[in-house]
Amino acid sequence: MSYLILSVLISFSASAQKDYKLWLQYNAIVNSSIALEYKNNLKGIVVLGNSETIKIAKKELETGFLEMLGNVPEIKTALKGEYNLIAGSQSNLDTELKNSLQSDFQKLNEEGFIIKSIAVKNKKQLIITGKNDIAVLYGVFNFLRIMQTNKTIKNLNIADSPKTNIRILNHWDNLDRTIERGYAGFSLWNWQKLPDFIDQRYIDYARANASVGINGTVLTNVNANALILTPQYLEKVEALANVFRPYGIKVYLTARFSAPIEIGNLKTADPKDSEVIKWWKNKASEIYKRIPDFGGFLVKANSEGQPGPQNYGRDHVDGANMLADAVAPFGGVIMWRAFVYSEHDANDRAKQAYAEFEPYDGKFKENVIVQVKNGAIDFQPREPFHPLFGAMPKTPLMIEFQITQEYLGFSTHLVFLPKLFQEVLESDTYKKGKGSTVAKVIDGTLHGNKITGIAGVANIGNDLNWTGHPFAQANWYGFGRLAWNPYLDSETIAEEWLKCTFSNDENFIKPVKNMMIESREAVVNYMTPLGLHHIMDTGHHYGPGPWVSNLSRPEWNPTYYHKADKNGIGFDRSESGTNAILQYAPEVKAFFGNLETCPEKDLLWFHHVSWDYKLKNGETLWNGMALKYQEGVNQVKEMQQVWKNAEKYIDSERFKEVEMLLEIQYKEAKWWRDACLLYFQQFSGKDLPAGVEKPAQALDYFKSLKFPFAPGNG
Amino acid sequence: MSYLILSVLISFSASAQKDYKLWLQYNAIVNSSIALEYKNNLKGIVVLGNSETIKIAKKELETGFLEMLGNVPEIKTALKGEYNLIAGSQSNLDTELKNSLQSDFQKLNEEGFIIKSIAVKNKKQLIITGKNDIAVLYGVFNFLRIMQTNKTIKNLNIADSPKTNIRILNHWDNLDRTIERGYAGFSLWNWQKLPDFIDQRYIDYARANASVGINGTVLTNVNANALILTPQYLEKVEALANVFRPYGIKVYLTARFSAPIEIGNLKTADPKDSEVIKWWKNKASEIYKRIPDFGGFLVKANSEGQPGPQNYGRDHVDGANMLADAVAPFGGVIMWRAFVYSEHDANDRAKQAYAEFEPYDGKFKENVIVQVKNGAIDFQPREPFHPLFGAMPKTPLMIEFQITQEYLGFSTHLVFLPKLFQEVLESDTYKKGKGSTVAKVIDGTLHGNKITGIAGVANIGNDLNWTGHPFAQANWYGFGRLAWNPYLDSETIAEEWLKCTFSNDENFIKPVKNMMIESREAVVNYMTPLGLHHIMDTGHHYGPGPWVSNLSRPEWNPTYYHKADKNGIGFDRSESGTNAILQYAPEVKAFFGNLETCPEKDLLWFHHVSWDYKLKNGETLWNGMALKYQEGVNQVKEMQQVWKNAEKYIDSERFKEVEMLLEIQYKEAKWWRDACLLYFQQFSGKDLPAGVEKPAQALDYFKSLKFPFAPGNG
Repeated sequence: MSYLILSVLISFSASAQKDYKLWLQYNAIVNSSIALEYKNNLKGIVVLGNSETIKIAKKELETGFLEMLGNVPEIKTALKGEYNLIAGSQSNLDTELKNSLQSDFQKLNEEGFIIKSIAVKNKKQLIITGKNDIAVLYGVFNFLRIMQTNKTIKNLNIADSPKTNIRILNHWDNLDRTIERGYAGFSLWNWQKLPDFIDQRYIDYARANASVGINGTVLTNVNANALILTPQYLEKVEALANVFRPYGIKVYLTARFSAPIEIGNLKTADPKDSEVIKWWKNKASEIYKRIPDFGGFLVKANSEGQPGPQNYGRDHVDGANMLADAVAPFGGVIMWRAFVYSEHDANDRAKQAYAEFEPYDGKFKENVIVQVKNGAIDFQPREPFHPLFGAMPKTPLMIEFQITQEYLGFSTHLVFLPKLFQEVLESDTYKKGKGSTVAKVIDGTLHGNKITGIAGVANIGNDLNWTGHPFAQANWYGFGRLAWNPYLDSETIAEEWLKCTFSNDENFIKPVKNMMIESREAVVNYMTPLGLHHIMDTGHHYGPGPWVSNLSRPEWNPTYYHKADKNGIGFDRSESGTNAILQYAPEVKAFFGNLETCPEKDLLWFHHVSWDYKLKNGETLWNGMALKYQEGVNQVKEMQQVWKNAEKYIDSERFKEVEMLLEIQYKEAKWWRDACLLYFQQFSGKDLPAGVEKPAQALDYFKSLKFPFAPGNG
Repeated sequence: MSYLILSVLISFSASAQKDYKLWLQYNAIVNSSIALEYKNNLKGIVVLGNSETIKIAKKELETGFLEMLGNVPEIKTALKGEYNLIAGSQSNLDTELKNSLQSDFQKLNEEGFIIKSIAVKNKKQLIITGKNDIAVLYGVFNFLRIMQTNKTIKNLNIADSPKTNIRILNHWDNLDRTIERGYAGFSLWNWQKLPDFIDQRYIDYARANASVGINGTVLTNVNANALILTPQYLEKVEALANVFRPYGIKVYLTARFSAPIEIGNLKTADPKDSEVIKWWKNKASEIYKRIPDFGGFLVKANSEGQPGPQNYGRDHVDGANMLADAVAPFGGVIMWRAFVYSEHDANDRAKQAYAEFEPYDGKFKENVIVQVKNGAIDFQPREPFHPLFGAMPKTPLMIEFQITQEYLGFSTHLVFLPKLFQEVLESDTYKKGKGSTVAKVIDGTLHGNKITGIAGVANIGNDLNWTGHPFAQANWYGFGRLAWNPYLDSETIAEEWLKCTFSNDENFIKPVKNMMIESREAVVNYMTPLGLHHIMDTGHHYGPGPWVSNLSRPEWNPTYYHKADKNGIGFDRSESGTNAILQYAPEVKAFFGNLETCPEKDLLWFHHVSWDYKLKNGETLWNGMALKYQEGVNQVKEMQQVWKNAEKYIDSERFKEVEMLLEIQYKEAKWWRDACLLYFQQFSGKDLPAGVEKPAQALDYFKSLKFPFAPGNG
């Protein structure tokens, strides 16, 4: 068999597999000088230690070398000769080596790793180490990424630690395997076959997460079911925890506040009731007996119909602290969500979470962390940062991003979210003066918090490719990278991901990376330009529905948010309106509150302006808005062109998938443009400006579209 | 790179893929003399024709050769030299070749194929042909199976035609992608992304079906939703039909009888109403405009709450014929289900379908085929054949098997169903004297029916391995093979499947084949020995529930079926009981009705017998039953041992999957044994005989088990 034929053979058998392999493709390295460098500098592998985690690290090195270079360097049991890759934790290094790395170790936290070219007895070696085996595994994945991205490995000197403690996925997965806001199939967790059947998916999921440093997973929906806390299910959770543990991933669950009633036979769930307190203590003890490293609970309480302490005249602090006491003896944390708004509160919904939570600052137990969505409404294509960030200096706040694209075209639209995440993380709260970015709130450096964290609502399901859209894999990847380091640039992330997932060819990387970066602004343009928000259709949030005004709760209606009328459009949150801007630091308040300084991308979030308002480019608001919608459509058209040119660099299966999805995205961008402009035109009474395509259908057509079985409708 | 390393590389990248590839693994042929024979006899490929189907056949040959032999014979555009494989339909053959095969073609029906070693101008060639391109594709898949099973290809002379016209999967898939009685994940049909996104799964599904000759698929649940008939969904159905067409697969839909009301704005769905008649005619016309080869409708009417003609005082004939008229102009068929029983009918449920349908014989239009479940109750581990078979000579009857394991341990238990299917197909109805087997009813030879068919309720979902259990793939495969030829032996099917899926090593094949064959009797033994039936737990039908007696409809309760009391156990369907045996031919009636001749495997289906009744082996019924339960458990234990010995022959991933599942099956076999024996012991009042293990828990424990989120609960 010739080499040529074998490589064809490989591509044949592996084609349907590529989608599944995520960013761990370990493509054969085609740059021969790089391949030669790697081979010359890596002639042996010495793995120190014997834990499950170390075995995983070793296997990962073997797989990576085999697939990228075609063979595995000699596996040695002891250090001999030069150009070895040494992988092992601090305690497994010999004294000399340990001492020589002392200053490097001092730079690391518990999860940080070192990748360093060193000389041992005058012989060149490369070492991957850290304070424990999980850190070594992180180092191994990072080293393999260096190879995947074809970077030189000569003279490496990396010491890298995660900047947050809790880097966690939130799975909104129900026990029947439906996923609220899930667009990539159904839940990975096959509860029926657990605990005795371990699906290969669980292992591959853990591996993918570990490769980007994600170290926690909340298995169940925040709209929780108490049954997960019964022995029947805890046995299954335990089995998953056992799979995830060697990958450094802790399991967390959502706690339904009324569980003591529903599964505990109590009459109340009052957090001050002694029986209730005891019930949760016992429950925590029961869980930790099974899962000694159980992470803790995520709680959605008194929000959108979920039970909570307010049902008993108590407040969020009472609820969170009661649970915190239950898990504290075992080192657990309570992640308490600040996503609250009330149908009985006539206030601007954007103000309610701040109004309720800000006064609680300093009142939570020290193992409580408050989880705050990135913006004050709900995961829109663009939102100004949530005013709670920086406003609770004595309380650890973790940010909650949504990786799944509830309001961003499900898994059909290509939108590279790290660009959005970066925009939020870079936002300056000014709460401790200039430079008080959201990232600094989150990583604890601004206020010196002890616990820190970043949560992402997962976009993962049991689709063959995990995320529905091949490019949605980049959002999982990018979330993990930003959770590790909230200061990373989204361009860097896009480039890494593309190289690991598709190809190192610069002719591919450059245009496709630009396409990814542009994609976020494209979706803003064709859905919600200029600060518009929450004008998606009812319930499922797929497609436009700016006309919807008949829902029972006013703040569920798109008309509540855009407030279009004959005079203009936009939600006045300035001093003349709801004064929501008062929740920000004075500098930010002034910035957003003033039409002169408010960025046009946030204009209609903060101001109600007339249709004739002059934008900075000289266009009227109406014309400018219409042109933005058109620009979004044009951007998708350009994305399609970029992708067509990428065909020759990648496998045909993924090429075609993305091609089909971009075609749908283009159709739907036009749908958004036409439906929104026709609707708003009723108020503006103005013609579409030159350059904006005429709608293909009348407004009634768009209003008539119904999606009774849209996925993810919670 | 050495050969050794490359083969490791291949196994690395392909391992997670094996599960997905079903029986189309095309494993490299390790028997070198066979490989040499293939190479020597196949030096070129000549593919005739240009249709999509022929392109698929060509690609399949290329893939098969490449993977099995490591290279592809030269692809030639014209016949040159000897030892070529020629693949093309009759009309694409040159005149000389066509004439030389005339007598072979005469043996074929439209879908049959020829695989024949021939000489053309004294040169040896191998030809695969048939009357059209689909037949050629079937021939190609059959030829590749010959290679996969390492059979000689010298002097081949095969002419094989399917014995039934409609070889069809019934997907009980809902529009929200849940699957009624689905245990392998969720529906393959991603309605949200259709029609514009064609999931690779659709193509691989069609390919797998074509490879075993399945030529139809009903996309939607028999408990139907009318929305599938709206343009919004028909556009999506059309897209699937376009994918499936070149694979010879027709699309069918379920027709909700009340659709004219629900989506047609009519006030009635009365099949005699002229507006209703017109509505269905227009609907058929609309569908056929999109899908010219649309297969027709499958209808569940007036059954388990579904609407039907009886809602308007009409009967099944009125309903079926009205729909038949609507699709007749386009060549469509109506598959009308005979699965009916009424809560208002105090008769033995087993008698009701026959009682209702037998009088309709000869009254249906000629494009109606009545679909009858294999037994008179509902897809039990064992049922005597349905008395309708042979009883409606003037009406085409198709058999409905359940491939998904609703009553057989979901996708957790290894049960090789072709053994069950074969038992039914071989059953002799005696309706036209000895030898009037169910197979002969089904393939039309007994009564000379024009339309014939076999339906299987699919066990397919979006699990990585399609069917949940690796061995459940064999049930999909085996169903297809039996639909093609209802006279095939299940051992032959098991052997073929094992070779195509795992290995040709006889040391693997022999014990594992025996394990498969035994597996069906094992499940009967540990669930429902000696003719017991329908004693599964409520609703989900998972696990034992012989004690359930509180359901609203009497015939939904297990106690209705086993009728255990102090005197004995069993449903008396003999002359002294419901006399259900009267629905069979006199020979069969006599056979089942007499305790002397009634096979013990059907004993409690037909007779209520005392606990002290003496079985043929001399044991009392109670002891015999207990020993049967124990035997089932022992058989699973043996299956585990067989599987352990198989480890060295196959990949570790699938080995482990099956190993874990067998462990669960063993646990659950014991659960069945203990729960049933403890329950029945209350009536028998007798001790367990020697050799039967003592139950590990008390009866109350087993009764307390609840499965609120069991999958597939319709």
